[in-house]
Amino acid sequence: MKKLQNIFYAQSGGVTAVINATACGLIQAARENSDKIGKVLAGHNGILGALREELIDTSLETDEAINSLLYTPGGAFGSCRYKLKAADGNTAEYERLFEVFKAHNIAYFFYNGGNDSQDTTLKISEMSQRLGYPLVCIGIPKTIDNDLPLTDNCPGFGSVAKYITTSIREGAFDVASMAATSTQVFIMEVMGREAGWIAAAGGLAAEKKGDAPHIILFPEIPFDEPKFLAKVTDCIKKYSSCAIIVSEGLRNQQGNYLVESTKTDAFGHHQLGGIAPVIADIITRNLSYKCHYAVCDYLQRSARHLASQTDLVQAYSLGSAAIDLVLKGADGIMLTIERKSSEPYEWAIGTAPLSKVANAEKYLPRDYIDKEGFGISKKGREYFLPLIQGEAYPPYKNGMPDYGGKLQFKKVKKCLA
Amino acid sequence: MKKLQNIFYAQSGGVTAVINATACGLIQAARENSDKIGKVLAGHNGILGALREELIDTSLETDEAINSLLYTPGGAFGSCRYKLKAADGNTAEYERLFEVFKAHNIAYFFYNGGNDSQDTTLKISEMSQRLGYPLVCIGIPKTIDNDLPLTDNCPGFGSVAKYITTSIREGAFDVASMAATSTQVFIMEVMGREAGWIAAAGGLAAEKKGDAPHIILFPEIPFDEPKFLAKVTDCIKKYSSCAIIVSEGLRNQQGNYLVESTKTDAFGHHQLGGIAPVIADIITRNLSYKCHYAVCDYLQRSARHLASQTDLVQAYSLGSAAIDLVLKGADGIMLTIERKSSEPYEWAIGTAPLSKVANAEKYLPRDYIDKEGFGISKKGREYFLPLIQGEAYPPYKNGMPDYGGKLQFKKVKKCLA
Repeated sequence: MKKLQNIFYAQSGGVTAVINATACGLIQAARENSDKIGKVLAGHNGILGALREELIDTSLETDEAINSLLYTPGGAFGSCRYKLKAADGNTAEYERLFEVFKAHNIAYFFYNGGNDSQDTTLKISEMSQRLGYPLVCIGIPKTIDNDLPLTDNCPGFGSVAKYITTSIREGAFDVASMAATSTQVFIMEVMGREAGWIAAAGGLAAEKKGDAPHIILFPEIPFDEPKFLAKVTDCIKKYSSCAIIVSEGLRNQQGNYLVESTKTDAFGHHQLGGIAPVIADIITRNLSYKCHYAVCDYLQRSARHLASQTDLVQAYSLGSAAIDLVLKGADGIMLTIERKSSEPYEWAIGTAPLSKVANAEKYLPRDYIDKEGFGISKKGREYFLPLIQGEAYPPYKNGMPDYGGKLQFKKVKKCLA
Repeated sequence: MKKLQNIFYAQSGGVTAVINATACGLIQAARENSDKIGKVLAGHNGILGALREELIDTSLETDEAINSLLYTPGGAFGSCRYKLKAADGNTAEYERLFEVFKAHNIAYFFYNGGNDSQDTTLKISEMSQRLGYPLVCIGIPKTIDNDLPLTDNCPGFGSVAKYITTSIREGAFDVASMAATSTQVFIMEVMGREAGWIAAAGGLAAEKKGDAPHIILFPEIPFDEPKFLAKVTDCIKKYSSCAIIVSEGLRNQQGNYLVESTKTDAFGHHQLGGIAPVIADIITRNLSYKCHYAVCDYLQRSARHLASQTDLVQAYSLGSAAIDLVLKGADGIMLTIERKSSEPYEWAIGTAPLSKVANAEKYLPRDYIDKEGFGISKKGREYFLPLIQGEAYPPYKNGMPDYGGKLQFKKVKKCLA
């Protein structure tokens, strides 16, 4: 009997509230096909797990432990921000990877990540051909940024969108109560370095005239201070209080970030953040309104307690479908979500060539933003609304979400130097 | 038949996720006793509603609308931060108040607030005797700060505690995933100007060794930078990542706030905030770890989507009990929560004289903090744990919590100048 070939699965880039649901779907589908496919070995900290031969043997986990991945935020197996060197300059790193794959009988490579991660998947796919080591390479999308091309949306994004809409609505109810004698403006800072997908999704909360958010500051719309201050003044006049969503990627008229630290990550991206107090300061200096601000940061992308059921189902289904697809011969592709209809919402899983998704970004269409530039359009609302539907509460224990704790994370014994 | 006398009810100070549940309990109890007691007239924006004769007639609201108060965050009738002048210097303000009460046949005054608000209740109670206008004055506790004396805990606090424990746990799962190649430290800033109740409650999430929060920075423990940096280093060494809760009220060895703006509110309290980036900067400068930080601000106290069922039940019960108590002759008191037992958790509603609660603060006992000063003790855990038990999800519509929208807020016709 031929020995079944194993799977390498890893999580990469910024994590989400539902990336582990993808792992859950993939591992459960592999278990259901245990006559055709071997073990799922999960890389500890993404591709680093392969480079360092740190492989978590998921076959040693109980069904219950695997199931707990459905409701655990973060990247259970560890993620990484690590860019493989261009293949031309340095093949040593790739040789090491394939040495590890060979040593552990790995024939399938599943990489669960965003733009930068799909670049890794593509490079490994190309190198597998160059080195003559057959390796089925599949990208599984994941990014709260929602900026992967050729997929209608990205798993992780729907849950952030639900968190942001809920949070701006709650914060707005608070500031509305306080406005008579105290705080009149509430500012909430959200992620989104290059594109305003997250900020825009928050616009869903404004269902009727006067609802929060009253103002969204998008990276796509250069910050126009006088126009912004006039809008804030108008809001206070009409509604007594004003709730604002500001994207960390807000830029000035010259196209530069309003706030930018000097630190960069492994991919050369600047670390942003701290825009909310800047906006608060602009308002207080010019209009004397008292402001409060929140910075959501990791809370927005790890809020599994408020995950979108739609997002969770898609994340899980992509993991499961990845196994089905490779059993049917798929290779060199990233799975995608195809929208068939917005109302009623219907979707299916599709595929796109890795070469077309790696390092590419999908920007927020201008027509998802309304004409004035402080809110979303009807078209934007139609796009975002299905993604936040349904609540997917985790189990609670002692009054707190019962995350983790069931997985053993036992590593495969190393056999290389 | 004698005309039934009306109730004035108002919300005051910083609002909470469950203050409207108190309003709901009070209005429903008044409706059940419509043979003994008149209408509930809610002050628009706290005591200002009385001063300006802006009274919302809750009798015009449907039962469904009143019930929706159970799951709506913020102060539905508007809150205020407004300090009545000392009675000696200026009686005009008080005369105006009693003129309004008389004009609207008001014989009961219920003020739903924290320390400063109970000062207002006491002053009005005293003035009612001086001016010879019989007014039953009742304080109903509410403050996320949990610092009212003579009550075991304060409604609103349990829900913040649940939000903070959940959020630090979720943020910690995120940073743990990222630590291999990127962010190693996650810092979450929480409220608590004078006392570390909120920061301490977050300690509940650390159920076993290595769990987040790894470090809590309390206002009660003067910030010792070298000791703190050593602790961060130790955490990273042991757990690869470090999750920190920092209270906005953190003070240095000289007793001054680490971060303080020059702005003050109506009560002379300094507006704080912005401590998280300061802590991040201290870590990065000294230890070079990459940090991320979140500022919870209003989100922590308005997060009705994550309210504690225990907190909700207590908030509702206090409103309901307030009516029962005045029908039994109570006056000049604030309602309290008395803890009978922590395990199993048993509590009852009690009372305390207004004179003993007004302007007094209850500090976090030192023995709720552990010896090292970065976490909570067993005693602290016993105190906090019951307060976050149970989930009380709001209804959702279109994927978002369905807050507000059912109340009409019709005001009583003014009859004074």
